[in-house]
Amino acid sequence: MTTTSLQADRLDRARKAASAAGIDALLVSPGADLRYLTGYDAQPLERLTCLVLPVGGDPFLVVPALEKPAAQASPAGRLGIEITGWNETDDPYALIAARLPRALTRVALDNRMWTEKSLAFRAALPGAAQVLAGDVLYALRARKSPAEAEALRRAGAAIDRVHSRMGEWLRPGRTEREVGRDIADAIIAEGHVRVDFVIVGSGPHSASPHHELSDRVIEAGDPVVVDIGGTTEEGYCSDSTRVYALGEPPEEFRRAYEVLLRAQRAQTDAVRPGLRAHELDAIGRDLISEAGYGAYFIHRTGHGIGLESHEEPYIVAGNRLPLEPGMAFSIEPGIYLPDRYGARIEDIVICTANGGERLNRTGRELVVLT
Amino acid sequence: MTTTSLQADRLDRARKAASAAGIDALLVSPGADLRYLTGYDAQPLERLTCLVLPVGGDPFLVVPALEKPAAQASPAGRLGIEITGWNETDDPYALIAARLPRALTRVALDNRMWTEKSLAFRAALPGAAQVLAGDVLYALRARKSPAEAEALRRAGAAIDRVHSRMGEWLRPGRTEREVGRDIADAIIAEGHVRVDFVIVGSGPHSASPHHELSDRVIEAGDPVVVDIGGTTEEGYCSDSTRVYALGEPPEEFRRAYEVLLRAQRAQTDAVRPGLRAHELDAIGRDLISEAGYGAYFIHRTGHGIGLESHEEPYIVAGNRLPLEPGMAFSIEPGIYLPDRYGARIEDIVICTANGGERLNRTGRELVVLT
Repeated sequence: MTTTSLQADRLDRARKAASAAGIDALLVSPGADLRYLTGYDAQPLERLTCLVLPVGGDPFLVVPALEKPAAQASPAGRLGIEITGWNETDDPYALIAARLPRALTRVALDNRMWTEKSLAFRAALPGAAQVLAGDVLYALRARKSPAEAEALRRAGAAIDRVHSRMGEWLRPGRTEREVGRDIADAIIAEGHVRVDFVIVGSGPHSASPHHELSDRVIEAGDPVVVDIGGTTEEGYCSDSTRVYALGEPPEEFRRAYEVLLRAQRAQTDAVRPGLRAHELDAIGRDLISEAGYGAYFIHRTGHGIGLESHEEPYIVAGNRLPLEPGMAFSIEPGIYLPDRYGARIEDIVICTANGGERLNRTGRELVVLT
Repeated sequence: MTTTSLQADRLDRARKAASAAGIDALLVSPGADLRYLTGYDAQPLERLTCLVLPVGGDPFLVVPALEKPAAQASPAGRLGIEITGWNETDDPYALIAARLPRALTRVALDNRMWTEKSLAFRAALPGAAQVLAGDVLYALRARKSPAEAEALRRAGAAIDRVHSRMGEWLRPGRTEREVGRDIADAIIAEGHVRVDFVIVGSGPHSASPHHELSDRVIEAGDPVVVDIGGTTEEGYCSDSTRVYALGEPPEEFRRAYEVLLRAQRAQTDAVRPGLRAHELDAIGRDLISEAGYGAYFIHRTGHGIGLESHEEPYIVAGNRLPLEPGMAFSIEPGIYLPDRYGARIEDIVICTANGGERLNRTGRELVVLT
């Protein structure tokens, strides 16, 4: 399937899903939803760019006049949809409202549209209830096509190459920030166009799951949690966490790590169609709780991944969504002993008809660098 | 003033402005508004982080439990405001609604809050009308303090150092993308922590104001528009455009460039308190129109700059806002001859009591690289 027919097919499926949900029109501003539906990787700006997809008419793209050449040069320009430029003193919301049927009852806005834009649409379309486009789009985006799965495999291999080189940079005496800069350079060098995040949590910082970087000098004996990800040229994201130890870590850390590794392995082995997201979360949580660390696993198991680092499906208590072939998500349990140390092991996994396929293939054991 | 008392003062001024506007509470998610008010440079995530500033009570910050250590370690942790963590299965919107007075009539949301969050607040606070926090916050943010002006001067000097080095990278035979990578590296090396944008528009690409980078090979004789910016450690943005020519450009390009330079100089010279934004726009537009190029100046004159690359005030037709001391904005007229070539000259200017102060000081003449 060509890129263009791929996106035409996605627009068609989005329209049908919207119609089934009683939505009259989808309004999609720059971001992953727009890229998914049109291939146009537009920057979010104060000036409105918006794909309008009425369920009963042809889609059209409204862009600031000065972005029109970029929009036409993007895959959206080959989709055969109308691209309308608006000038600096035009009101693009009024322009869109005038082209939509007057009897709109429900419009769906992309979940990440800026509120200044959704409130402007509310004023321009006062009769239409506003709902979230994610309710229809995320079900489409969560099931990756074979081509998308390939793109995620390439992203996974790229971040694996960075982890494989960690010994080049991670040494006692360097700060987390220095190591982080080297990692960021390698994320680009190994096949991404953007660095999305670099977490280097050393010693006590490993106990904070979302610590990023600091000027702390890494010491011999420190456990170091390295959680890194980027976006490839194709637009797909990578995300993998490994734990390194600079010399032999404390015995208690070793014990917690073995529990964590057993839990993460049990979870990646358990992935299969039909298993519910909350059940997958519980498989790791129960093992960790039985070993006495339940109070220290303080976040969900994982998040979906694709054109965004974090997207549906979320692997979290309360989410009864059954896994389906094509769904891609992280499995990243963690154990955090406050103010002392912590660990997290993370792979991206795709659900296939035959079980889970891990896209990150570096060893999951604690890596002792000496 | 210490950083902490600075932010306490900003919270106080925001509360007073909100009260005067009939707003009962400000709800501020991660972004420049949150950083301005609390110093907390939080990542926008699907999990809700929100500063709640009721006009009749104490402000508090609601964060995902796993972000609490990061929030406490940020300047927000030294502000003396309550920081509440919510757990993975809590509903943070209900948690906030329960702590606000029941008789809310109007809440203000930060302009860039994701719509999934503003719709969740609408459901949790059904009696409250939603308005934009920007209506009160942007007037505060637009008038830079002396310390903020200093931070913008440092950002301006950093991007000037990058422009000064352009001859190292910009040569016939290289692609825009190759040159762009070198510029991006230099943006970091010269004093930014983030690259915000790199536009290298060579030859006919210079005729598209928002062209970014391509694999086009730059040729001898090409005019090249280089529009670049980044964010410094302090959080302030730079943005400057210069035009380079790889050898002597066509005579007609020279003529258009001289008109543009005269217009841009007239505009930077005209800045003074009381001049209205639309009047400043007209000063350049009229000069360009008189020279016969009016139809080819297809965008506004400029945008405010500070913690964001694009913020209030916008220097655009229709904006009757009078300039005030402390306002910082770009002056960037352009002339674009479709499919042939174009040019844009951009400086950041701060309005002072005595006129405009240019923060970009590299020469504005066409730079002929040979």
